[in-house]
Order: sequence, then structure tokens, then C-alpha cells
Amino acid sequence: MSDVRLRLDVAYDGTDFSGWALQPGRRTVQDELESALCRVLRLSEAPTTCAGRTDAGVHARGQVCHVDVPASVAESVHGLVVRLAGALPPDLRVRRVERAPAGFDARFAASWRRYAYRICDEPHRVDPLRRREVLAWRRPLDAEAMNAAAALLTGEHDFAAYCRRREGASTVRTLRELAWQRRPDGTLEGRVVADAFCHHMVRALVGALLAVGEGRFDVDEPRRILETGVRDSRVLVVPPHGLTLEEVGYPDAAELAAQAARSRTVRGPV
Amino acid sequence: MSDVRLRLDVAYDGTDFSGWALQPGRRTVQDELESALCRVLRLSEAPTTCAGRTDAGVHARGQVCHVDVPASVAESVHGLVVRLAGALPPDLRVRRVERAPAGFDARFAASWRRYAYRICDEPHRVDPLRRREVLAWRRPLDAEAMNAAAALLTGEHDFAAYCRRREGASTVRTLRELAWQRRPDGTLEGRVVADAFCHHMVRALVGALLAVGEGRFDVDEPRRILETGVRDSRVLVVPPHGLTLEEVGYPDAAELAAQAARSRTVRGPV
Repeated sequence: MSDVRLRLDVAYDGTDFSGWALQPGRRTVQDELESALCRVLRLSEAPTTCAGRTDAGVHARGQVCHVDVPASVAESVHGLVVRLAGALPPDLRVRRVERAPAGFDARFAASWRRYAYRICDEPHRVDPLRRREVLAWRRPLDAEAMNAAAALLTGEHDFAAYCRRREGASTVRTLRELAWQRRPDGTLEGRVVADAFCHHMVRALVGALLAVGEGRFDVDEPRRILETGVRDSRVLVVPPHGLTLEEVGYPDAAELAAQAARSRTVRGPV
Repeated sequence: MSDVRLRLDVAYDGTDFSGWALQPGRRTVQDELESALCRVLRLSEAPTTCAGRTDAGVHARGQVCHVDVPASVAESVHGLVVRLAGALPPDLRVRRVERAPAGFDARFAASWRRYAYRICDEPHRVDPLRRREVLAWRRPLDAEAMNAAAALLTGEHDFAAYCRRREGASTVRTLRELAWQRRPDGTLEGRVVADAFCHHMVRALVGALLAVGEGRFDVDEPRRILETGVRDSRVLVVPPHGLTLEEVGYPDAAELAAQAARSRTVRGPV
């Protein structure tokens, strides 16, 4: 009997996880999730693939992953969310399970990823109920200047200057949105959308914009750094706990099927 | 030299506190706060009075308290917020400190208290980053029915049926607002405002409205219970972790002074 692909929508408080990806001896989201799937579905393994391999300490509200399971098991998909809830730790939830449409791949079929980065620039005023997901920053930030600098970074570019380089991998990405907004509670929230991100990219971009917000960088400095193509030691990779993967976008079913046909020869960005 | 009264605006994640009030051998908000005040201001004691003596597990974003300190110490109020931030644990913040206006008393001068109670009635979908402040409820809730029932409870009443009785204490309160709203993330948020609350009152009112939301109680049952004046064992006192003290309202400076003059003879509600 052939396998059935399930799509899982996953949320986690990243505080006590060593990130998404399996690492021997570490508590990771992937390991907790696959263990729970194995227990609930009585499988010996349940390898998952996710849209965004978040780093240690990074949270997710809208992580998406897929897992291929025997068709016999998938017949009981209904109710799997409830059964998983009992098998998962409280800092990890599977919020939805469904049969994936044909051609669906949580990683390669994703059209875009949306992250949020949250900062409180009156550090003593951080809401204690939000302290795990908001960066306390010592100096006041000028959101307007940060938005002006951010606008110069959107579009398709080689983001090598903001990525941890991996041998041979492309660092060309399309940054669709990068904008800051003051929330009613005073928090500064950055919204970042791209087709995909390379490693450390969101946190390095936020670091460069923080320097603008503080007045250490001119508004066009982050763009100048982008154009050099090399990392700049003045750019801080901000701490992971302010970062949350909020949402992943996919094409509709027809486009997914067409995309899958194409991807048999060519792979999209990671 | 006479004392100076300071107003402190306080927020805490109630998860790891045994409530506000001092209790020997327990970790309480009052104890952590007074210890930090003593260390920072070099005092041997710093007794505080608060607007809402929250129970174990209840959170606060807008708790208000006052403390009387020697005038010599109060001269350095500026910067006290920053110094307190370093002396307090991360789950407790003093978000503002100011000299209180004449006649200010955090408890007796308060005009109203506003609480929020948060529920997720798709329990497996609770946002893991909000799990400490949102009650996961097993059955779907009808917010419209809960609001219809809530509307019958507002106004001045004897809330004895919804209070843990204390010998001789009045249970007459004015419930200004009690209303439920669905948030974009699916959470149901109750907003509860009264001049003051007696012990367990918010959590018992929410318990009665949950029974309406589930269809176990008719819409007018919580009002009927109110009129009996005695507690009803069918009414659950809901868990504390869904409850947050959001805001406390005070009269303006002129009214405060007048109120203080009156209170030399008569005490307002607790």
C-alpha cells in the first residue's frame, strides 16, 4: 500500500528547544514531533520535512511540515490533532493535520515565509508575559528611520552580506516585505516576508536596522552593506528569542501539481 | 523628615508566584517586590499596598501599588525604574514609578479594576507562546449566548452567590462591564470591569458564563443564581491562569484629595 502525505501546521515556544532540526542528545522540535507521531500512529519512524528550519530559541506560530505515512494509518487522520495534543509537550502543538494536496512539499513548494521580530526599546517595561518572545533593547529606536532603511533592502538581491555562508549555496533571495510597526503596547514589531531565507538572514537584517534605529548607521548603510556582498562585523545577529515564524504560503492545488512536475528536474530555493 | 508616597505600576507573569500577598515560605509578588525595594532604596522595610490582591497563578499587566518611603530616598525616584529592573526577577517588572498625588491610595482610592479572562475553546490549538495565560477548554463556546447572560449581571448587585464569603464583609459590587469577544487568533477574551471585586468573583462569574457557552445553563441561569444569594455547586471557579489584572482606574488629583478627606471617616469598598 502506498504512502499518504500529511500536512501538519505546527506551533512552538522555542525557549526550551535547540531549534527545529534533529541533533543527537539535544531536545529539538523535530525529535519531539516525530516521537509523538510514532507513538500515536504506532510507526517505527516518521521523518518530517519543514518549511523553516528555525534556530535554537526561535518560536513558531505557523510552521508547516509534511510526513509520509502508510495509507492504512492515514485513514485515521480525523482526530489525529486531538491524539497528538495528548502526546506532545505543552510547548509544542500540532494545530492542524490534513492530507496534503498532490505535489505538496512543505519545504520546496513554499512560495513565501513570514517572520515577525519583536522588540521593546524601554527594556524595564517588557511585559513579563511576553518576555520569552520580545527582545529588551537598551536604547530607544526610531521606527521611521528603520522603515526607510528597510525599504532599500526589499526586492531580489544576493543577501550574502546578511547570511552565514554555506559552500556552493545561492544567497539570492526575494525580500517581499520588511517593515516595522509600533504596537499599542509600545512594542516594535518587524514583519519580514521572503520567498525563502538563508541562515541568520532575518536576524542579521534586524541587527542592521537596529543600528539605524539607534542612529549608529545612516539610513542607507544597510543597503551599502548589502551591495558589498560580505558580512560586516558591525552588524549584530540579534538574539533568537525575538523571532517567530508566523506563516508559510503555498500555491493553490493546480499550481502545486504543475510545480511538482517541474521540480522533478529542477529544485527551487531552500 | 516626613514620608513620600510612591505609586508603582507593576506587571507579572503569575505562573510561578503564590499570588500577590505575603505568605511565609511562599514566593509571592509582594515579597519579591518589597525585597527589591529594600535593596535598591537601602531600607529595612518597604510595606506595599496594592489595588488587587491577585490569587496564585493570576497575572497582572496593570497592577498598581503604593509604598511610603523617607523623603530623602524619594529624591532619587528618577531612575528607580531602571534600578528596580536589575533587582527584580524576570517574571516581575515595575513599569513606572512616580510620586503619588495627595490622597492617593492604591487600594482605597481606586475607582475601578479591569480584568481579562482568556479562553481557547479548541484546546489543541492553544498558542504555545500564550499557554500560561489562556485556558484551554474542551468544548466549543457560544460567545453570543455568554454575552446575553453577561448583560443580565451588570449593575449594582449583592454578588454573594459568586464570592467566597468573609464574615461581616459586604459583597455588594457594581459590575460595570462584562463582555466576550473573539480575537483574530480564535481566543475568546472576557473583559470584566467593576468598582471592586470580592474573592473568586471574576473566576466564578466566568465559570457560570462558560456553562452558558457550552449550553449546560440557560442564558438567564447566572442571573437566577445571582438572585439566590448563595453559591451554586454547579458553578465552576475557573483556573487562575486565564485571568489577568489589566488596568486600575483612579480619580483625578482634585477628586483624590476630596476622597481622601472623606475617607478619614468612611472607608470605601475593598
